Amino acid sequence: MASKIALLQVNPVVGDINGNALMICELSKLASQSGADFAVTTELAISGYPPRDLLLQPDFVKTCHQVASTLQSEIPVLVGTPVPPKDDRSLPGNGVVRAGDSVREVTRKQLLPTYDVFDEARYFEADERPGIARTIAGLDIGVTICEDAWQHCGATPNDYDSDPISQIVEWGRQGVVLDATVNLSASPYHANKSEIRIAVARSAASSLNHPFLLANQVGGNDDLLFDGRSVIAWPDGTVVVAPAWSEGVLLTDLSNPEGCDWLGDGEVTILSPNQELEENDDDLLDAIIIGLSDYCRKSGISKIVLGLSGGIDSALAACVASAAVGSANVTGISMPSKHSSQHSIDDAKATAEALGIEFSIQPIIDLHSAADAELSELLANGNPVAGENLQARLRGLIVMAHANANGAMAIATGNKSELGQGYCTLYGDMAGGYAPLGDLYKMEVYALSKEFNKRIGMDAVTNSTLTKPPSAELAPDQKDEDSLPPYPVLDEILRLHIEDGLDATEITSKGFDDQIVKDVLIRLSRNEHKRWQMPPAPRVSKRAFGQGWRQPLAARHDWRQ
Amino acid sequence: MASKIALLQVNPVVGDINGNALMICELSKLASQSGADFAVTTELAISGYPPRDLLLQPDFVKTCHQVASTLQSEIPVLVGTPVPPKDDRSLPGNGVVRAGDSVREVTRKQLLPTYDVFDEARYFEADERPGIARTIAGLDIGVTICEDAWQHCGATPNDYDSDPISQIVEWGRQGVVLDATVNLSASPYHANKSEIRIAVARSAASSLNHPFLLANQVGGNDDLLFDGRSVIAWPDGTVVVAPAWSEGVLLTDLSNPEGCDWLGDGEVTILSPNQELEENDDDLLDAIIIGLSDYCRKSGISKIVLGLSGGIDSALAACVASAAVGSANVTGISMPSKHSSQHSIDDAKATAEALGIEFSIQPIIDLHSAADAELSELLANGNPVAGENLQARLRGLIVMAHANANGAMAIATGNKSELGQGYCTLYGDMAGGYAPLGDLYKMEVYALSKEFNKRIGMDAVTNSTLTKPPSAELAPDQKDEDSLPPYPVLDEILRLHIEDGLDATEITSKGFDDQIVKDVLIRLSRNEHKRWQMPPAPRVSKRAFGQGWRQPLAARHDWRQ
Repeated sequence: MASKIALLQVNPVVGDINGNALMICELSKLASQSGADFAVTTELAISGYPPRDLLLQPDFVKTCHQVASTLQSEIPVLVGTPVPPKDDRSLPGNGVVRAGDSVREVTRKQLLPTYDVFDEARYFEADERPGIARTIAGLDIGVTICEDAWQHCGATPNDYDSDPISQIVEWGRQGVVLDATVNLSASPYHANKSEIRIAVARSAASSLNHPFLLANQVGGNDDLLFDGRSVIAWPDGTVVVAPAWSEGVLLTDLSNPEGCDWLGDGEVTILSPNQELEENDDDLLDAIIIGLSDYCRKSGISKIVLGLSGGIDSALAACVASAAVGSANVTGISMPSKHSSQHSIDDAKATAEALGIEFSIQPIIDLHSAADAELSELLANGNPVAGENLQARLRGLIVMAHANANGAMAIATGNKSELGQGYCTLYGDMAGGYAPLGDLYKMEVYALSKEFNKRIGMDAVTNSTLTKPPSAELAPDQKDEDSLPPYPVLDEILRLHIEDGLDATEITSKGFDDQIVKDVLIRLSRNEHKRWQMPPAPRVSKRAFGQGWRQPLAARHDWRQ
Repeated sequence: MASKIALLQVNPVVGDINGNALMICELSKLASQSGADFAVTTELAISGYPPRDLLLQPDFVKTCHQVASTLQSEIPVLVGTPVPPKDDRSLPGNGVVRAGDSVREVTRKQLLPTYDVFDEARYFEADERPGIARTIAGLDIGVTICEDAWQHCGATPNDYDSDPISQIVEWGRQGVVLDATVNLSASPYHANKSEIRIAVARSAASSLNHPFLLANQVGGNDDLLFDGRSVIAWPDGTVVVAPAWSEGVLLTDLSNPEGCDWLGDGEVTILSPNQELEENDDDLLDAIIIGLSDYCRKSGISKIVLGLSGGIDSALAACVASAAVGSANVTGISMPSKHSSQHSIDDAKATAEALGIEFSIQPIIDLHSAADAELSELLANGNPVAGENLQARLRGLIVMAHANANGAMAIATGNKSELGQGYCTLYGDMAGGYAPLGDLYKMEVYALSKEFNKRIGMDAVTNSTLTKPPSAELAPDQKDEDSLPPYPVLDEILRLHIEDGLDATEITSKGFDDQIVKDVLIRLSRNEHKRWQMPPAPRVSKRAFGQGWRQPLAARHDWRQ
């Protein structure tokens, strides 16, 4: 019988050590029943990735290590876990142990990513030994952890001093023949990231001259998403990919790609040597939904409330919320003001009805008049933005009252384009525990709205919402384009700067108006104080506001001039 | 004539490359006029510390390096600046150049702190060569950068692989005789940190057997504070310390501690070999004030508005604001509700009058009634916290309307104890661009209030405010102690856990009630979502919420049970 290795594609809850252990046991049982010889978890599967400052509590590391080492399983399991520091003056390791073996460690991570959303040098000490775990169920196995495999094909932003894949290749030259190398990963999602991940796996398999198996975490943890898509690559470039966004077991037949199997929802994709994986059109939609649903589930939140303005952002946010926690657990509130049009209320209502969520209309006209009267002198003589923000904040106040009264979580409905320009109100439309659209450019909000309609076969986002000019409706006849460039232009300028790192000169040279580019970039840097206080948003782009974006607040940003 | 080295204790604006260069030129001119042979700036003085993700823009590093290298000065100046990466696949260096010498670099930082508030491994590549800059004004000088000197006496949380001070000692053994070693620092403040910094300097001077000169940044940059207190230590343990919280030049006479001079406000302190520096009682008060004043100045904010409840937090916040931007630029608003007592209004008014700030009374009674009426059903049937938060949010809305109308910044008045327990309202009392008291425990708020009164010789914080039981006044006869342990107990439990890293068992063993300790720690971990959205607060403790505190949100925190 051919050797079978099971990759456990798990969705851990950060800090839920015993719960995560139980999940690993269940999946390894499933793997064992399906004939697996041994199993491999994802990176730090016991603690969940990223555990962040929980790692600074020595008890946490000890408990993880102890639970991982004593985990009961019918087949051997390589478990990703924090491992204790080597001495009093060192940091813990990001390691792998073999369940049931509390004496010997298998390996520790050598390359610690400390860029973008990663902070690993803050928490871990890098190891220097390549990990080779022999005689697991009769197989000789190389063991690497996530980033360890990325240096080899130059897929890291900067070079490390060592290359763990080449080290294993060197062992091979010295006569240590391995059957396979495994990689325990928690490789975060962004759109089209799986291309790179598959390239990493192919490069490693090709150099190692044996199969390379990468088990990747799945699910959302705060602002980070993990898409799963565990990968097996053979030296000839053949690849088997597990489904995205779904927990399960990828059962590998080392000698036969066609013999690989997925235990769980969905099925494997087999790619021939030069074939690329196509991400579905609605991958981004799945990402956003799992981000919100996992955040709620892992936080013990069952109900969501949001303002439904009749605009595209809140309409899509309602769609995502209903998919994340179920329509019966979502409340949309239309809060028309004197500046709101009837079509806004109608569109909001149509969205709520299509989704089957609870809907209420709570006009802010009286409250707004009362506040206007109380603050009349101030508003008459001050910056008109005060009056506009007042309306947004009254709505925030009402949504939060609903949330607090009913034990629901409010969600903020803003998108990346408006957050990037400060075209949003702190404590108003920015209020909420999570911002599901916070890493989507405006034009992506349109595209995903259409995608969602297609998926459910109904116009949850109405045609009117999709086609009317975007407006904050905070002043008479106000349109977003009065203050901002048209969204296709704005989105592209922001994307070129944020994602691709281009400066004003480089963006202008692509054909954009010089002044518009400068205005967009200066608004971006001047509104960092708002984003400092924005709720977490699921990261779907190469670079998102939040953990991977650390800008100074009180700073000069015109240093180029 | 004896050799004189000038330490330029600068207060840079992050990103203001030309402004910082100008400041360095002015201080070096002052130094030159006073007979200095050469000058040394603080770490990354050209960019300001910490430049955070500005360092990810290649242009930024290039511009800093170019401006630092071409800076004009009558005497040589060693300037702290980011320096370009050594190749395409590397990160920049945290370096030192000699002004006017754009060819040769002096050195790059070897030890990159990546813990607590530090993220240097994210931005810089560590260097491996000890820095020795010879023949500066006829002197042979060793050059180190901040953390480089901290490994030597074991003052870092974990060990580095190398010790730059020992490397220079080794050069000495090999016959390279130096006159002094300088250290360009941006060493952030926390209470009693200067003790450790002086110990670092003494340890280095003792091992090197020549004077060790540490130039430290001063001023606030977002949530980080730098106290200055540049230090010169001699091998026998004699130390000269520059004033705290003040920009200026520490002029060193290498051969005579008594001959050292401070060019600026204040004066040097000379410590004999075993003497410790005493921080003044009001050091913490200075820290908080400079945090807010620098944040405002560096952000171009001239006016502050805040809610004045008559409670101790808002009273002290008003004192700090008036000291930071001047009484004429501060507005305090009393916003009594039906639950507010007359003494609250009287206390708020007395504070405003004592400080000479603008004061207005804006009752929320009518608005509260209007909101209550609109949301009556919801509030009657829901969690009572909704009604309490509603009042706090109406106040937040009014304060923000004032801020937006008048171009002022609202400040949040919460303290670390209540933020740590979630005893505060998102978008209510947590609203604002800065939280000056956000890293002060409640009992420190009392102590600083008394200190402030003493300093100005008036009861700006009234005796009534200082002595009445703390109350949020959001429900009839509400007292903080109905929901929280008495503050002296709460503060100490929080401090033991947050600052000293003790767990529940260890805290209980110090004599605290087991259940109280568990409740406090579980409230701390469950309210991370609120702190995620809190405004920046100046760090004055060993561990503050914010940049140095990275907790997961959707996580289980009861893993010990």
